[in-house]
Amino acid sequence: MIVDLCPSPALYPFYKRGNDTVVVVDVFRASATMCAILHNGATAIIPVADIEEAKRYKSEEFLVGAERDTRKCDFADFGNSPFDYIREKVAGKEIVFTTTNGTRAIEMGSESKKLYVGTFSNIGALAEKCAEKSERVVIICAGWNNRVNIEDMLFGGAFAEKISGISKMLIGSDSLRIALELWKQAKQDPLAYLKESDHYRRLKANGAEGDADYCLRPDTVKIVPYYDSYTKRLKALS
Amino acid sequence: MIVDLCPSPALYPFYKRGNDTVVVVDVFRASATMCAILHNGATAIIPVADIEEAKRYKSEEFLVGAERDTRKCDFADFGNSPFDYIREKVAGKEIVFTTTNGTRAIEMGSESKKLYVGTFSNIGALAEKCAEKSERVVIICAGWNNRVNIEDMLFGGAFAEKISGISKMLIGSDSLRIALELWKQAKQDPLAYLKESDHYRRLKANGAEGDADYCLRPDTVKIVPYYDSYTKRLKALS
Repeated sequence: MIVDLCPSPALYPFYKRGNDTVVVVDVFRASATMCAILHNGATAIIPVADIEEAKRYKSEEFLVGAERDTRKCDFADFGNSPFDYIREKVAGKEIVFTTTNGTRAIEMGSESKKLYVGTFSNIGALAEKCAEKSERVVIICAGWNNRVNIEDMLFGGAFAEKISGISKMLIGSDSLRIALELWKQAKQDPLAYLKESDHYRRLKANGAEGDADYCLRPDTVKIVPYYDSYTKRLKALS
Repeated sequence: MIVDLCPSPALYPFYKRGNDTVVVVDVFRASATMCAILHNGATAIIPVADIEEAKRYKSEEFLVGAERDTRKCDFADFGNSPFDYIREKVAGKEIVFTTTNGTRAIEMGSESKKLYVGTFSNIGALAEKCAEKSERVVIICAGWNNRVNIEDMLFGGAFAEKISGISKMLIGSDSLRIALELWKQAKQDPLAYLKESDHYRRLKANGAEGDADYCLRPDTVKIVPYYDSYTKRLKALS
């Protein structure tokens, strides 16, 4: 199996091939939050790209999670912290969800053969699922406003390392090589490695360092969110 | 001074700011070749993006360098090897030049305040020039068909290290941090570090390993090619 990495949603047209299994990663924090939403019993996530659409859902009594630039939007029920979505609030419900970068990356990959959401929280379950029968897995890094970030690259390296322990893996291109090299440097202590990074500093400025710590912890859930292109919802793969 | 790095020409709209000094780098091999052309006495380089335009110039008796996918185009006088452009052939002439990735990156950056061509060959002269009076320097990596490659990232890290020895440097964003981390791993032996990379293997398959070695050698010329937006030519900065 080939694994490749696309470092920004805007570059996916140049990495795309037929039959791709796409993994969308937004380490800080949308991917971990989506995993938490489904882990805590929500029936589905409705990803929407813009705030106006999220507001329309809100006016129709949906529960809405909405974040822009690291902060919860005023009109929303939840922000982008995985800790917001407790079981008592989300179990049995559909949750509308929009974030600065994560939902955009899902849009880019939504026409692929399969789209999963991955991050450290579900890295083990995700690797097992991808190893089952994918020809080529492409990790699409959500980045920040289409710019590249370190934490999503690190996840790419960690994922490739994990999957190479399960099945024979071929490196697709230099961008995955870069991710593997960075992960080699960071794996002993990813949080320390990221202390100077753009997004960690934004989280810290907004009092969300605890989220950063949680988002880097491996295998806290067994959930693999997948995109159902018929209903345009993310659901938990059973 | 702020230094940032844009890992693919296609991402420059997301990295662009007013007053940028742009450095276009295509380590294998367009940047070193352009340095060699001007170093060996050509009066200017006319960068063109497509083959048809290069052919038109050829029919008007211009000397033309043209490469696609690591190979010299049949109609052209030269390919993309720095060793092709010897003084006896290029001194006093204007050279038309088109390569797979390098000329595209120049197009992306051509509206910036200043555009320089940089690579290991001229890293010292370039850093001196950029340190003079730039507010923000953005390295645009030519990459490969808009995908990210390792060698251009390495140059970004090497350049940032070099310039931080001359003037106070602020890191613009995570992408430059990534470049600095990779350079830290590679600097003892960049050629060995790149042996598994996509482009080194393409060069090797085309018998051009010698070019790779030359392209990584620092400070072989004092030339800094700059883009003159009025004449649409690259000339040597004196």
